[in-house]
Amino acid sequence: MICFNRSFAVAIRSLHQQVEIKALKVQESFPVIDALQASNWSRPHFESLVNSGVTAVHVTVAFWHSCSETLKQIGKWNRWFEEHKDLILRVNDAADIKNAHQTGRTGIVLGFQNTSPIGDDFSLIEIYHQLGIRIMQLTYNNQNHVGTGCYEEDDAGLTRFGRIAVREMNRLGIIVDVSHTSERTCFEAIECSERPIAITHANPISFRKVVRNKSDELLRELARTGGMLGFSIYPLHLANGSDCKLEDFCDMVLRTADLIGVEHLGLGTDLCLDWGSDYLNYMRRGTWDDEMDSQSQIEWPDYPSWFQKNEDLQNVADGLATAGFSDGEVRMIMGGNWFRFFEEGLSRQS
Amino acid sequence: MICFNRSFAVAIRSLHQQVEIKALKVQESFPVIDALQASNWSRPHFESLVNSGVTAVHVTVAFWHSCSETLKQIGKWNRWFEEHKDLILRVNDAADIKNAHQTGRTGIVLGFQNTSPIGDDFSLIEIYHQLGIRIMQLTYNNQNHVGTGCYEEDDAGLTRFGRIAVREMNRLGIIVDVSHTSERTCFEAIECSERPIAITHANPISFRKVVRNKSDELLRELARTGGMLGFSIYPLHLANGSDCKLEDFCDMVLRTADLIGVEHLGLGTDLCLDWGSDYLNYMRRGTWDDEMDSQSQIEWPDYPSWFQKNEDLQNVADGLATAGFSDGEVRMIMGGNWFRFFEEGLSRQS
Repeated sequence: MICFNRSFAVAIRSLHQQVEIKALKVQESFPVIDALQASNWSRPHFESLVNSGVTAVHVTVAFWHSCSETLKQIGKWNRWFEEHKDLILRVNDAADIKNAHQTGRTGIVLGFQNTSPIGDDFSLIEIYHQLGIRIMQLTYNNQNHVGTGCYEEDDAGLTRFGRIAVREMNRLGIIVDVSHTSERTCFEAIECSERPIAITHANPISFRKVVRNKSDELLRELARTGGMLGFSIYPLHLANGSDCKLEDFCDMVLRTADLIGVEHLGLGTDLCLDWGSDYLNYMRRGTWDDEMDSQSQIEWPDYPSWFQKNEDLQNVADGLATAGFSDGEVRMIMGGNWFRFFEEGLSRQS
Repeated sequence: MICFNRSFAVAIRSLHQQVEIKALKVQESFPVIDALQASNWSRPHFESLVNSGVTAVHVTVAFWHSCSETLKQIGKWNRWFEEHKDLILRVNDAADIKNAHQTGRTGIVLGFQNTSPIGDDFSLIEIYHQLGIRIMQLTYNNQNHVGTGCYEEDDAGLTRFGRIAVREMNRLGIIVDVSHTSERTCFEAIECSERPIAITHANPISFRKVVRNKSDELLRELARTGGMLGFSIYPLHLANGSDCKLEDFCDMVLRTADLIGVEHLGLGTDLCLDWGSDYLNYMRRGTWDDEMDSQSQIEWPDYPSWFQKNEDLQNVADGLATAGFSDGEVRMIMGGNWFRFFEEGLSRQS
């Protein structure tokens, strides 16, 4: 068992007062990073992250939010960073993740799941970077100014505006995310981007055939260019949905490691807690008419029994070890790979 | 003659290759700061600032601008900082002013002349701080959510929202500016603020009786609490307007030094170049009906012959020396005092 739980770390640490334990250093150099959670945040969630030993988490600031709505959301996070600074801190770059690790807190990487906050205004990309946004998903399901979403029937690829937007994200050190983006737009984003990009939360389409999951061909191109895939535990992305077994999930991770290399793999659990179905409807339908996206179900699915909360990340680590990953590989998947990726991806191009 | 002109500095510097000159160190430790300019900026203005040896200038990002209009303006400055980085750099704190001085560039302090960009949204104060805004004038002539402007007939003082806004500026390290603010609101801002505040661009009312100039009583209270006054060279704030003589301006500075102490004095020239009268109308009337502010004249006045451009700051320095200020005092007024004030005022409260 590879244990990263904070209370365990604390226990080890107090033991450390008496004797020097070699394992401790490994423990302390072991970041746990979840590349996507979108809960209805409040202090208990932050406590759960810290108690579960989560070093950093990428959270969703905006889906369909306009510029002014997005500023309100960022303002909310500013207040939370102040009010809950015993638990969380803003991640501007990898040094902040290290700081979180050293101080036993959770670093929060602010991101968008859509480019609605930008609309067609190029200058807003830098504005949001100044406000601490570090990850931008190009599209959320549907077509926008930047590119095509995974639910569209026709896929026109990255737009002309999308190309300059991607380059601007490259310049600033904003990570390009294509989790909810169409196949062709994903490929063109990889081709256009001067820096490796991320699929923060999705699975291989071979695991479950849904438009949100990704083809082997795309995953290979992602990895070839230095990109990262974060495995989702959102039921609709899993074989057998809510009934998906931990063993099947971990076998899928193992097969993906064979396909693209373990160094390109991490978690992006897509854990969304404590929202009502109204928010799910908003996520699926945005500001449109109800009839426009009839594919969406309007109730939240249940997460699998082995992953209902942050504390269950331990189950995932154990499952990966059982599936045959070495200790070092489990640590890479649980956070080490994302840390390396963020260290490079959040730096500003000179 | 106290010379701070950049070309002179360069000449001295090349001489310095051969012999060690003691005067050089004084020269190089002498910042020149203008606490308000609001030109229609373009590269020639930045060249003029650098050629004139201006170390830092506070520029106006917004007058009546809404939030989205303000973001566009900040976006424009972001682009200029990138395109003209050989000439200018963004001032986040005093270290950036030092950097400007050391690299022969001009540091730009971004500020608002009004709180229109905030409206009644408290969280936007921190948002703008994140975007690099470092000075906020509470009101521009008229009543707003924060307080009363100098052109209003009734002066209700700082509002309840204004009180928490001032404290938030204090917390973040945004300098409170009350140049265009009514007398009572100025007094209440000084009283409310936990940190010294600034009148970046105005003159004593004894020099010219206009609502934009300030009473002796207010100036004394400003200085007593560590605040700063930047002398304006905008004609409407000067005795005899455009015909004001340099000697009369410098005598006024001398009298003000006697009144509140030379350590509280600086420049805030209010130099506004290359705007058409349409922009002046916008400044005076904002988004209102034309009839609402009949006091405004609709053509730009001529600046005095001795101050038409940044290069003429040398005339002001010479005039101050002629008026009887010591070399050290001239350097304080030309920028040393503002540097000290910015060093303290732009730091974030712990």
